[in-house]
Amino acid sequence: MVASIDLEARLRSYRDRVESALEELVSEEMLGPSAEAMAMARTVLMAGGKRWRPVLTLLAHEAAGGVPNDEVMDLALAFELIHTATLVHDDIYDGARLRRGAPTLHTTHGDAEAIIVGDYLFVLGFGLGGRAENKIVESVSTTCTAIAAAELKQMRHIRDLTTRPEDYDEIVRGKTAGPFANACAAAAILADASEIEIENLKGFGMGIGVAFQMVDDLLDLTGDLSMGKPRGTDVHEGKMTLPLIHALTVLHGAPRQRISEILESFNDAHWDELTELLHEAGSFEYTRNLIETHLINALDKLRTLPSTPARELMEGLAEISLGRKV
Amino acid sequence: MVASIDLEARLRSYRDRVESALEELVSEEMLGPSAEAMAMARTVLMAGGKRWRPVLTLLAHEAAGGVPNDEVMDLALAFELIHTATLVHDDIYDGARLRRGAPTLHTTHGDAEAIIVGDYLFVLGFGLGGRAENKIVESVSTTCTAIAAAELKQMRHIRDLTTRPEDYDEIVRGKTAGPFANACAAAAILADASEIEIENLKGFGMGIGVAFQMVDDLLDLTGDLSMGKPRGTDVHEGKMTLPLIHALTVLHGAPRQRISEILESFNDAHWDELTELLHEAGSFEYTRNLIETHLINALDKLRTLPSTPARELMEGLAEISLGRKV
Repeated sequence: MVASIDLEARLRSYRDRVESALEELVSEEMLGPSAEAMAMARTVLMAGGKRWRPVLTLLAHEAAGGVPNDEVMDLALAFELIHTATLVHDDIYDGARLRRGAPTLHTTHGDAEAIIVGDYLFVLGFGLGGRAENKIVESVSTTCTAIAAAELKQMRHIRDLTTRPEDYDEIVRGKTAGPFANACAAAAILADASEIEIENLKGFGMGIGVAFQMVDDLLDLTGDLSMGKPRGTDVHEGKMTLPLIHALTVLHGAPRQRISEILESFNDAHWDELTELLHEAGSFEYTRNLIETHLINALDKLRTLPSTPARELMEGLAEISLGRKV
Repeated sequence: MVASIDLEARLRSYRDRVESALEELVSEEMLGPSAEAMAMARTVLMAGGKRWRPVLTLLAHEAAGGVPNDEVMDLALAFELIHTATLVHDDIYDGARLRRGAPTLHTTHGDAEAIIVGDYLFVLGFGLGGRAENKIVESVSTTCTAIAAAELKQMRHIRDLTTRPEDYDEIVRGKTAGPFANACAAAAILADASEIEIENLKGFGMGIGVAFQMVDDLLDLTGDLSMGKPRGTDVHEGKMTLPLIHALTVLHGAPRQRISEILESFNDAHWDELTELLHEAGSFEYTRNLIETHLINALDKLRTLPSTPARELMEGLAEISLGRKV
């Protein structure tokens, strides 16, 4: 237990460094011509995000042999800014009213302002990320165009009950896991790591990114307010999460018919029945097993790197970000 | 006349090079994971834009002593992609139905798709621009955050009859002229030009950018379909263009009262009366004089550079982009 408290405290110190650097950036911007844009942006940017991406960037950099410097912090902030930009824009077209417990930007300021503030966060992030070497810029750019491609694909699969696990995989790798993989890879490139180390760190990021999304999928169905997400957001929006895709694939006959009906016109009165059908199909267990597999594979990749305090913290971050005790 | 035909042909050859490079980029993207995003993006990207920004980039690079290469074409394309991204997003919140005679992307595909396609064009542009040296990346990033700031300011001034010329100047420099200035400055930096040359080219870009917006303002009130813009788009959207700001500033008593009433609830039946009031205030003449002043100042800055074919073409581009015969 002492070790685990120590681990959390050490992770927190990385998060605190990210937080301070972000606060400094926000303050600088508030003194310049973008003050109005930042005044809106900071309500989302400073609303208590977990900072997984920037913390992972700092850790992967150290795990790959890098020494903490301004360049890696610029990258870390760039990834958090770009992530926040996608949240602001996502919330508009998802019609989301709340984000981290507070009203979303488009709800308080209107769609137009939210589009512009998202754009502002994108370009601010790219300005920071663009300072890095070409190989990193290309990784960031490819990751971001893949986010857009994945979001379009996800949109096409809203309430599409024929969505296959391969579609899910493609969407998750593009939208959620790609940015985790890119954070690790870019940090490793910056640390002058070998190709094999870059690939392993990228694989680690991809693995925990996929697992991270699957945990999110489970929480949407089981609910856990301690993780900051109310139950059912995805179901109500018609998003095809993994447990649903699994159940639709394995159920047949009347149960298959019934779950289709429920998903086509979901309302809160359906919760018990939906949960029962998902249990019947073994979809929760299937998802939990897959999370475990992705986590184990990710940790295997990570453990090809030399054992260092940073590597140990990445293992801890993997466990904690997936909602486990360490 | 022979000289002028020759000038147009030579400018067209630059535009053709931009067009070919864009087509190549579009084709590459259509073979990759972003095919769906590009399929939508290209309807706007390839819809016959004038390519002022990328052509200016190529010319400024040569005028500053640069030799045509892939790097400057990457920058030129980056600026066109970023410009197109802002058009796609602008059209959403301006509620614009048509762009270059075709239905806007959000009209044909919905707001969600248009937001994502705009984001995609932004990151594609930044991916290309991010390959350049840090000083250029910083110029691009500052320009883009200034666009966002200017758009927010413009939005706040919609139907605001107390908008001052200084507000107008700030909005135009951020939104329209900044990208022209940045195109010239970035190209000059890439060509290893001296600080003074960079500043003069930037000043040229800023000057013709401001003039370009003022011409656009005039056309909105006088109409000229050969320039591709139907009359009255800005007036209907409540945008405070320079002739309107001028008239509201110089008119007093009954005419001031009347133009306020017209602008507060504009409809097409008001055209003759509005035009009459603008003539009475001398607002068309004032705007035309300012365009002339900005053009002369811009050309003065340009002429501090050595006399070269590229510089001559930039003079021609300035005249043509402002709708003049050469």
